Amino acid sequence: MRVGVDVGGTTVKVGFIDNYQIVDRLVVETKKETLFDDVCREIKAYANKKNYKIDSMGFGLPGHIVGTYIDKLPNVGIEGLELSPIVAKYFPNLEIHCTNDANAAALGELLADSDKKASAYMITLGTGVGGGLVLDGKVRDGSHSNCGEIGHMFIDYVHNYECTCGLKGCLETVASATGIVRLAKQYYDKFDTKIVLNNISAKEVLDAAKQKDQLGLYVLDIVAESLGRAISIIELSVDVDTFYIGGGVSNAGDILIDKINYYYNKYAHFAIKNINIKKAKLGNDAGMLGAAYL
Amino acid sequence: MRVGVDVGGTTVKVGFIDNYQIVDRLVVETKKETLFDDVCREIKAYANKKNYKIDSMGFGLPGHIVGTYIDKLPNVGIEGLELSPIVAKYFPNLEIHCTNDANAAALGELLADSDKKASAYMITLGTGVGGGLVLDGKVRDGSHSNCGEIGHMFIDYVHNYECTCGLKGCLETVASATGIVRLAKQYYDKFDTKIVLNNISAKEVLDAAKQKDQLGLYVLDIVAESLGRAISIIELSVDVDTFYIGGGVSNAGDILIDKINYYYNKYAHFAIKNINIKKAKLGNDAGMLGAAYL
Repeated sequence: MRVGVDVGGTTVKVGFIDNYQIVDRLVVETKKETLFDDVCREIKAYANKKNYKIDSMGFGLPGHIVGTYIDKLPNVGIEGLELSPIVAKYFPNLEIHCTNDANAAALGELLADSDKKASAYMITLGTGVGGGLVLDGKVRDGSHSNCGEIGHMFIDYVHNYECTCGLKGCLETVASATGIVRLAKQYYDKFDTKIVLNNISAKEVLDAAKQKDQLGLYVLDIVAESLGRAISIIELSVDVDTFYIGGGVSNAGDILIDKINYYYNKYAHFAIKNINIKKAKLGNDAGMLGAAYL
Repeated sequence: MRVGVDVGGTTVKVGFIDNYQIVDRLVVETKKETLFDDVCREIKAYANKKNYKIDSMGFGLPGHIVGTYIDKLPNVGIEGLELSPIVAKYFPNLEIHCTNDANAAALGELLADSDKKASAYMITLGTGVGGGLVLDGKVRDGSHSNCGEIGHMFIDYVHNYECTCGLKGCLETVASATGIVRLAKQYYDKFDTKIVLNNISAKEVLDAAKQKDQLGLYVLDIVAESLGRAISIIELSVDVDTFYIGGGVSNAGDILIDKINYYYNKYAHFAIKNINIKKAKLGNDAGMLGAAYL
């Protein structure tokens, strides 16, 4: 049996996985000081109780990882930690693998959807925009473990909003939940709309778009155009089979995915038109599944 | 001994290669009708004469290749040809490998410069702009054999020139030799310049820039900015160790490479600053060397 561990800022999700199926689960609270000891101890206790034989373990981690060395997990507050000796205390001789959470999710989506040796990019639209890359069935961390930081591509020259990273016009300044709210505020006075600006959420803007609200549709269009263009550039750079769109914003569903496909094909060179751009299916399970097969 | 074959529109360059060094060469005229028979026959005759034992053979081809199947070589006029049976007539049981010429050149530059298991992108600035990708020492053709078509990224929103491909604002509309001439013409009246517009070449514009000609410097700046921004986006997408800048335009040398680095760092997210962006060193030999190690 394989174990996939998806570390988040509040909880750590553990999946016990057999033949690409999550057959059992465990949730461990994220406590900065004792996180990996807690996780390993609980996995060991649970596996003993259930009589699970663990063959391998993988970790998807929200930050910058080099091999099994955790350089930085900003939202957890951990940095500069080598994971191997901690795991070895509980599971001597078990081989472990690590990657960042976006790469783990990308692999999870691919394994659940497609030829397991295919290539895919996963784009996660949440508070920010993240990305993960799988090439020929293997996660690519990159030469500096920065592969997939696509939220900070310069894409939106029209608004050229300042990004949290200090640059301007980054993809995530428009294509994230934060970006959607920002756009709705900017164009609020230009459209007849039922959207209420006070405490507005990205979900409300996208729900309004589904109801054909003019402001909602206008914002959706900008978001989809920026993503379509970004994907056309990524595809020329690395040429994968499928792009999976995940994260909270992707719950807008077909209306978003269809428009991204439309703009992708508008900006794509003729040689790369009509590739697969789909909604990610697994949601929160993708990270666990992918981590188990690193 | 390995043989690397670099097929061009006028000549086919053959390198006999030992331990990453081209120890002997052969040039065969490109004749569309009998190209691969000609090449194999001449290699066989030459190897017999010189008593070379050939262990493997690789081809870098100017077009769209899938495995050893030649889909299309536009400038040669060949399409829909399976290479294996032709080579097998002359070299039975010899394993052959193929890729496009840009990928072969990228691998050649990497092998001559760096850790042979490293990752690199090569950007070729000629009449158009091409690209080749090597990941962990292996050429990436991509899921649709379109990897590296980076000349057609949407990058230049300022001029938004129409591209030969039908799109607008493609990288090669400004960063190619053709683009440089186009820019010089567009800005000719705006600067005091010694450049003569009649029959102007990209080399003249770049040579003028080296002499501090105002028009030359202005054009160089636009070219370098478009490349710096494109590289920052490619690096986020796929994260390689080194970018090699090759092709005729790259002969401008340090003045171009330094400005590309400047703009790269201006547009690069903080996590990816200060990577290697260098002039390609091998020139026409890169394709042969890379093809031999596919």
